[in-house]
Amino acid sequence: MRSVEEHAKIVSDLLSPSPSVNVSLHDAAGLVLAHDLIAPIDLPPFPNSAMDGYAVRAADLPSFPITLPVSQDIPAGRQDTGPLTPGTAARIMTGAPMPDGADTIVQVEKTDGGTETVRIDDAPPAGIHVRTRGEDVRTGAVVLHAGAVIAGPQIGVAAALGFAELPVRRPLEVLVLSTGTELVTPGQPLGPGQIYESNSYMLAASVTAAGAHARIAHFVADDVDAFNSALSAASTGVDLIVTSGGVSAGAYEVVKDALTGRGVEFAKVAMQPGMPQGAGHFHGIPMVTLPGNPVSSYVSFEVFLRPAIRAAMGYEQLTRPALRLPLSQPIDSPAGKRQFRRGVLDAANGTVAPWGGPGSHLLSWLAGADAMIVVEAGVTHLDAGAPVEVWLLG
Amino acid sequence: MRSVEEHAKIVSDLLSPSPSVNVSLHDAAGLVLAHDLIAPIDLPPFPNSAMDGYAVRAADLPSFPITLPVSQDIPAGRQDTGPLTPGTAARIMTGAPMPDGADTIVQVEKTDGGTETVRIDDAPPAGIHVRTRGEDVRTGAVVLHAGAVIAGPQIGVAAALGFAELPVRRPLEVLVLSTGTELVTPGQPLGPGQIYESNSYMLAASVTAAGAHARIAHFVADDVDAFNSALSAASTGVDLIVTSGGVSAGAYEVVKDALTGRGVEFAKVAMQPGMPQGAGHFHGIPMVTLPGNPVSSYVSFEVFLRPAIRAAMGYEQLTRPALRLPLSQPIDSPAGKRQFRRGVLDAANGTVAPWGGPGSHLLSWLAGADAMIVVEAGVTHLDAGAPVEVWLLG
Repeated sequence: MRSVEEHAKIVSDLLSPSPSVNVSLHDAAGLVLAHDLIAPIDLPPFPNSAMDGYAVRAADLPSFPITLPVSQDIPAGRQDTGPLTPGTAARIMTGAPMPDGADTIVQVEKTDGGTETVRIDDAPPAGIHVRTRGEDVRTGAVVLHAGAVIAGPQIGVAAALGFAELPVRRPLEVLVLSTGTELVTPGQPLGPGQIYESNSYMLAASVTAAGAHARIAHFVADDVDAFNSALSAASTGVDLIVTSGGVSAGAYEVVKDALTGRGVEFAKVAMQPGMPQGAGHFHGIPMVTLPGNPVSSYVSFEVFLRPAIRAAMGYEQLTRPALRLPLSQPIDSPAGKRQFRRGVLDAANGTVAPWGGPGSHLLSWLAGADAMIVVEAGVTHLDAGAPVEVWLLG
Repeated sequence: MRSVEEHAKIVSDLLSPSPSVNVSLHDAAGLVLAHDLIAPIDLPPFPNSAMDGYAVRAADLPSFPITLPVSQDIPAGRQDTGPLTPGTAARIMTGAPMPDGADTIVQVEKTDGGTETVRIDDAPPAGIHVRTRGEDVRTGAVVLHAGAVIAGPQIGVAAALGFAELPVRRPLEVLVLSTGTELVTPGQPLGPGQIYESNSYMLAASVTAAGAHARIAHFVADDVDAFNSALSAASTGVDLIVTSGGVSAGAYEVVKDALTGRGVEFAKVAMQPGMPQGAGHFHGIPMVTLPGNPVSSYVSFEVFLRPAIRAAMGYEQLTRPALRLPLSQPIDSPAGKRQFRRGVLDAANGTVAPWGGPGSHLLSWLAGADAMIVVEAGVTHLDAGAPVEVWLLG
């Protein structure tokens, strides 16, 4: 049987690093910067006032109080600021350009606030409250490094430098397809022997949470021709195909029947849930085939696809945050398989408890869990108090 | 001066709890469930096989090996399954309905896999590998509780129960507007005295990261009429207006000039950066006016708006994850103000260092930070090694 690490490498190797594309600042949020961002201008682009007040020359303030004529008014955004006439003050607002010749900003609070003349009661040393050109960023400096995850502050500095777009690693386009003759669309009536299709919705949300784009192909019955034509029709422009169902040991395994010997290799992986897995290509597109039981499908996504997708998109953080916590209850685990159990954290006690049984159809317990408990393949029993690896979901 | 807590309460009190709306499963991801979700059906909806194999009666297996005729074939999704003829086996696939009368599933691996007759070498006790109706969820059970944050597993169980939509707390529609005559759109040429508009892009990304929807109104010059008409034009269907700039002590403070005495109260808050703040209503719409310096604007959003937006949208987790870590370098802090400094974490040593100076124009340092260091108002100096409150950004 294949180990989890072996299959993880096979899945990860299917995907190439996603290419760099330029997107608007808005669309860059949450993505990874593809190249270093080099400052094309200084920031601030010109010396400006850090305060509302008056720009003066220190040499014109021999003692206090002193009254000076106000020779100009400089609001922020004024484009025709002239030099400061010696012996005068310029009224100036925060962010407005320092007039040539001025070296000192007197805060409005230290003056009478006059507009014709101004009485200055005190002044800080020259240079205080003056933001010099390039004080934050110098032209040519690397402002953001390739690999940075882009959020508000990164978008803010890029905008301040004049970038309307950012080079990002393009989000993968992931096509999700469920198979199974028993499946019915949620919201439609359910007949005998039928169940609602849930994997594609669950996997699409997981794809999105991993940072990629998800497309759902309408599920298909256990019919090889229907499967092939649904995939062919929906896979234009797709970077990765993820199927669920049709890969185990039964007689009507549509994914296996369609793709065995045609680009996808099927294998048993030493894990529970999620033993039947497949990976390969469909018409040249990387493809990963997950088992159909919903919990198996979700666990397989978290174990194999989330890290592979995030690696291809350039994220440094591939996995969920993980830590070791003591169990508050004992766990049994099958020999020779790494077991992934749903868990709930007890933050007050710093412990984790298994949540629901190991059954791979127990979807409601998965939905109530906030952690995944990982029990190594060599371990068949853990007592309460034993430390286990815990992944923090959501 | 107003305390941070006082202003936070004023901002938070502006917003009403966002109403419940039904959205598609896809659109529900990341939002908060508005009502308890009650199961309309049992899950599984019918008894079914957990294995590929044969459904038999335990009474028909007096000893092993034993050969039985195969009386029917039950793939998943078969809707016309008849009862199991006594003394026969039904070939059955995982998820397929148990035929009436069968109580035992024999895995295919314990048989010769026959389709006319089957030789059975061994069998588990009755009930093993049978998933009973309602074993995961019973009709009428609360499957997801109001307040749950919806991700893949929650979407999965909702779909499995037949829900095509989920009731969620509607994301707030937040209008972001920057003011300042000095502002130029990124990508356009920059004239003397001008800077690129960055706050609206940064704040919009922060709004989105908080879980709400952001709209950017094109920034306006420091002109009261332009400000009022831009806001009036853009505020249809908006739950919250956030402006930046025009609220400090200067002579051209467009937001203050437009709204003082007209629904917005301006105040000084005992914090650095971010002292000038305002909160109130514009034509009945909640409005928060942030200072214009980019770092002030971002810090104000994190301190006041992120928790208020998340509370209105029903999230339990309002703030960034926070912890106390020792400083690796000393910090000075102004008397009487809570200081928010940009920081970088040293994960290996479990410490935090200030990153860049306190200047509220130092946007590149904000973009390079991964933490916010909070120094309480009563503290003017902290030595290296002193523990401080740290918010984990991003």
